Amino acid sequence: MSVKFEKLVLAGVGLICGSLALDMRRRKLVKEIIGYGRSESNLKIAKKKGLIDSYFVRPADFPAGVDFLMIGTPVETIVPLTQTFLPRLEKGCIVSDVGSVKGEIVRGMEKILPKHISFVAGHPIAGSEQWGAEAARENLFVRHRCVLTPTKKTDKKALKKIAELWRQVGADVEIMHPDTHDRVLGVISHLPHVLVYALVNALNRTNLKGVDLKTYCAGGFKDFTRIASSRPELWRDICLMNRKALGRSLTDYINYLEQLNRWIRDEKGGLLEKEFARAYDTRAQIP
Amino acid sequence: MSVKFEKLVLAGVGLICGSLALDMRRRKLVKEIIGYGRSESNLKIAKKKGLIDSYFVRPADFPAGVDFLMIGTPVETIVPLTQTFLPRLEKGCIVSDVGSVKGEIVRGMEKILPKHISFVAGHPIAGSEQWGAEAARENLFVRHRCVLTPTKKTDKKALKKIAELWRQVGADVEIMHPDTHDRVLGVISHLPHVLVYALVNALNRTNLKGVDLKTYCAGGFKDFTRIASSRPELWRDICLMNRKALGRSLTDYINYLEQLNRWIRDEKGGLLEKEFARAYDTRAQIP
Repeated sequence: MSVKFEKLVLAGVGLICGSLALDMRRRKLVKEIIGYGRSESNLKIAKKKGLIDSYFVRPADFPAGVDFLMIGTPVETIVPLTQTFLPRLEKGCIVSDVGSVKGEIVRGMEKILPKHISFVAGHPIAGSEQWGAEAARENLFVRHRCVLTPTKKTDKKALKKIAELWRQVGADVEIMHPDTHDRVLGVISHLPHVLVYALVNALNRTNLKGVDLKTYCAGGFKDFTRIASSRPELWRDICLMNRKALGRSLTDYINYLEQLNRWIRDEKGGLLEKEFARAYDTRAQIP
Repeated sequence: MSVKFEKLVLAGVGLICGSLALDMRRRKLVKEIIGYGRSESNLKIAKKKGLIDSYFVRPADFPAGVDFLMIGTPVETIVPLTQTFLPRLEKGCIVSDVGSVKGEIVRGMEKILPKHISFVAGHPIAGSEQWGAEAARENLFVRHRCVLTPTKKTDKKALKKIAELWRQVGADVEIMHPDTHDRVLGVISHLPHVLVYALVNALNRTNLKGVDLKTYCAGGFKDFTRIASSRPELWRDICLMNRKALGRSLTDYINYLEQLNRWIRDEKGGLLEKEFARAYDTRAQIP
């Protein structure tokens, strides 16, 4: 199956959408790409790198004839931005996104979009702590999962087209319920981010006279806390938007950690080793 | 200053002591190295790799004329093993170790060792999740810290000699109080290990029908949880032996995580972002 778009508006030309633009161009999946964003300097980089043909920064300048609007802005702006563009969206236009949270976005979009505009929610799981058009690169999605989270209201043709688009750029497409997606990402991505931000702050919270803890962190600790270099404001919004699923994971994690802490205090070596060994075995099973 | 030993017994010829042996040989800091361990197969590998000249597996076979005993066994065996060797330790022999916990080991050693045997507690911070003689390699310690934790009872000459030994193999030697060491390592190493074991077990504790969470962990999660591939029984013992300092760190971490969890639940975006930004800045300052 071939997939082809005429005029794509990319709202938020960062690592993800910028990389998608590169791959779509190379594979001739789109004729024209127009960038939108609040930062003109980022859009200039995007144009220079050949990710987009042109750009606009005022929502009122949304062009005519757009058959695909892909949104890669921070999660909390995806629905309001779509609402801003709504008067200019034409019949048959497909709207999609790459947000790391799906439930709240899907519900918000279904509330505001009319029947003649299709929305297909998506999330390519291929992030990094880098950002901006500068970070965009070819083949970012190859052999990475792209989760799509359609509902009963999702147009089947639009879903097929977006699924094919992601396959064309190398992703393994998977269909999932929005809430399941949020639970999965809550555990494998959002929880680790909170844990690592908190761990780095443990350095700040531990006062040892004459000791600068940071200087002891050159090796493993530094690798391990790489994700604390992710943009704070993005992760604030992801955490808030996925607060229900993340809260469940965090609460369970805290309870479990309290149990480990009690076992350490009470020298329950057997129980502790069993849990560590279970983690060791599970880690070894990660593909 | 030159440092030279006649006859070194290495008890526990793993990554750390095996690598030390390689560097000591190359630099001619020792004439003869004799390995000791419970696993003969590991000692055979050590001999084949040239880490040791010979080995013994029964403590009763501890050789005569040993002027240096370096112990790299799991932390909880360091003191009892020294006690076992004690009748065969000769006057002037220096005993040292590379254990990841220092307070309890220093106190235990000072209790059992007579005046004519010097103990210098050490910890080269240059680990990895690999282990065994097979993992030993040259220059493992170059530009890594080696913390020595002498007390008032430590013989100054022996301390000087061990410090010089670590400098000769490229380490940056640092003198620290044993309890300070345990607080530092509790935060930068032992706490992260517990957090990561617990995070991997969060996969096991999250039941999502039809979803194998492990298959979503190929990227960042896998890198991030690398330290869960450390040996469970070693980390059980490190956690138990450092339970006081680790418990402090864990309790503080749990309290802080509870606060973040409340802020996420109550949508306190400003407070959350401030903490994430603080971690971001701190991470950027790690050398």
